[in-house]
Amino acid sequence: MTVTDRVVTFAPGPSLLPDEVVEAHVQAVRRYGTTGRGILELGHRSDVYEELHASCVETLRSLLNVPEAYEVLLLHGGARLQFTMLPANHLPAEGVADYLDTGHFSAAAASEATTFGHTHLAASTRSIRYQRLPREDEVSLSSNAAYLHYTSNNTEVGTQFQRPPTPRGSTWLACDASSDLLTREFDIGAHGFVYATSHKNLGTAGVGIVVIHRNLLASARPLPAFLSYESHAQASSRLNTPPISAIHVLHLMLRWTASRGGVKAMERMSALKSETLYGVIDGSDFYQPSVATADRSKVNVTFAAPTPELEQEFQDEAAKLGMVGLWGYRKVGHLRASLFNAISLEATNDLADFMVDFANRHRRRMQPPDERL
Amino acid sequence: MTVTDRVVTFAPGPSLLPDEVVEAHVQAVRRYGTTGRGILELGHRSDVYEELHASCVETLRSLLNVPEAYEVLLLHGGARLQFTMLPANHLPAEGVADYLDTGHFSAAAASEATTFGHTHLAASTRSIRYQRLPREDEVSLSSNAAYLHYTSNNTEVGTQFQRPPTPRGSTWLACDASSDLLTREFDIGAHGFVYATSHKNLGTAGVGIVVIHRNLLASARPLPAFLSYESHAQASSRLNTPPISAIHVLHLMLRWTASRGGVKAMERMSALKSETLYGVIDGSDFYQPSVATADRSKVNVTFAAPTPELEQEFQDEAAKLGMVGLWGYRKVGHLRASLFNAISLEATNDLADFMVDFANRHRRRMQPPDERL
Repeated sequence: MTVTDRVVTFAPGPSLLPDEVVEAHVQAVRRYGTTGRGILELGHRSDVYEELHASCVETLRSLLNVPEAYEVLLLHGGARLQFTMLPANHLPAEGVADYLDTGHFSAAAASEATTFGHTHLAASTRSIRYQRLPREDEVSLSSNAAYLHYTSNNTEVGTQFQRPPTPRGSTWLACDASSDLLTREFDIGAHGFVYATSHKNLGTAGVGIVVIHRNLLASARPLPAFLSYESHAQASSRLNTPPISAIHVLHLMLRWTASRGGVKAMERMSALKSETLYGVIDGSDFYQPSVATADRSKVNVTFAAPTPELEQEFQDEAAKLGMVGLWGYRKVGHLRASLFNAISLEATNDLADFMVDFANRHRRRMQPPDERL
Repeated sequence: MTVTDRVVTFAPGPSLLPDEVVEAHVQAVRRYGTTGRGILELGHRSDVYEELHASCVETLRSLLNVPEAYEVLLLHGGARLQFTMLPANHLPAEGVADYLDTGHFSAAAASEATTFGHTHLAASTRSIRYQRLPREDEVSLSSNAAYLHYTSNNTEVGTQFQRPPTPRGSTWLACDASSDLLTREFDIGAHGFVYATSHKNLGTAGVGIVVIHRNLLASARPLPAFLSYESHAQASSRLNTPPISAIHVLHLMLRWTASRGGVKAMERMSALKSETLYGVIDGSDFYQPSVATADRSKVNVTFAAPTPELEQEFQDEAAKLGMVGLWGYRKVGHLRASLFNAISLEATNDLADFMVDFANRHRRRMQPPDERL
């Protein structure tokens, strides 16, 4: 490990991008293809943008194996606008929507829905600081919920559903897959609605990705066009000027993912990378894992060092070695390494080496003086 | 005029950016300051982003002389989300909001409001294809409107209010200033609410700029946080991850504007540039202006050539000379030159020269054969 000019960020997003994605975007900002101007200056009704947008949607469909019956939308507002749009479209005033409360963002999603209709927390592990996912027998589903919402990976606490929860009757599944979409195989067909923000595995901040079954395009109430899935679908996501530059980065990231073997390869890498770090944690009497073993995320590895002071020192030392963004979520604390797709195995190994080294050096310092031989 | 590698776009947005803004953004995409990573990978809770965001707001406040009592928000969704947020926050279900219908976007703003409460088109020039603004005696304001909404510059037709309309009683003014904010002096204090998208005079697509009186932060109905001005203000526009890259371009554009003499200088330039093109149009028997003289926009100059074929030829020839984006709005047709702040006087003169040359060559072709001597 040497200090390099190029820092590796293990932050929960905006995340690291592959060098080749950064450089390709740089070239596009200067000149986009043969247009004589940059991507920042490109018209959203131009043929070249049409091509870019279509290729983006096509590559996403192909990587995720999106069935024909689903529409792919690229919207403004990140994932957060979907906390509002989903219930605005599909939670009738007298209806109920079920939410699995497994982290701060799933709680926020449920909270945003309450102005539209009734929400039911079908399960919550909030009282145990979300340190595990609810067991199946802890989940109580409504008999007539419009949808069941869950967060496939809880970025801030570091838990991840190993498979989608099972909804009841005609209730369909809605999934916030912001932090693990494209990190593993994902059964779109088991869901009615899947959404994600762009700034974790899909580029930089500024785009919301929505995959929605065409049967769910029509809304439960009259809505302004900007909040209506149907309007966005009819306008091919160009109801207004899209966030073109962020969509360009998304496109580069999708093509990079495809060139690296697609979702299957990303899944293998996610397993390897998270096992590497959890190997250090489990093999150590210095670090403590933050969440239940069965629910560990392969994307966000969360752990504690013996004291807050050591956690600060851990981050300071890591930063000097060019590894940043290792703090825990502001409401959780401790340490966290986010292993999004752009994080290489090499960078993960460097972090693992540092973790071992840091533990070795500081474990000795913590021992009583007479054992320091 | 020679064909150059660098094309000048007179499109209605996304607009041209100054070369130095493009190059500064390129450098930031590679490495942002001393962070060791690019602007696309920067965390929105980092100190460096805090500084960028604060400087952006501060520069905007200073350029626009924003009074202390107003909050400046940088949001997702461009201007279009504000078509929804404004009535969601301030049009009670039993209330009424007045809209001046002066173009396709003002009509869209009024239309988005109808799901929240009553809207009253206080004046409309739609029946005459928006070719002029309503005269004062044509405006009939509601006695108790929550607000009066107008579009200061109608990008698609090319009309512009010379001064803000006068609201009635306690009604406050809401202004969509998407295409002329920063092109002229603007009295924020005469308004309760001013908004604009970023991709005309303020950078690239992806940001909505909101200037709102603090008395108007509280909403008329319960709202999800993402739709509430109060929530965004409390979170300093970081309720979720902001569109950081587009905000960076906004910041560069604001500093460029300040370095060029600020709004006063832009106003002089806008007058000069639009007079140059209107000079050609008015001095010609070839081009026809599209809108009433008194209501001409200094930002979007709209005109017609004698036939649709000649208009197509005009665009094709201009494109060969490196001047693009001259088509009219898709629902209006004809020709349009958008003179946003980044369009230089030189580029405008080049276009004027081409217009004269094109008219001279094609006027002759149109004359009856016996006059072609």
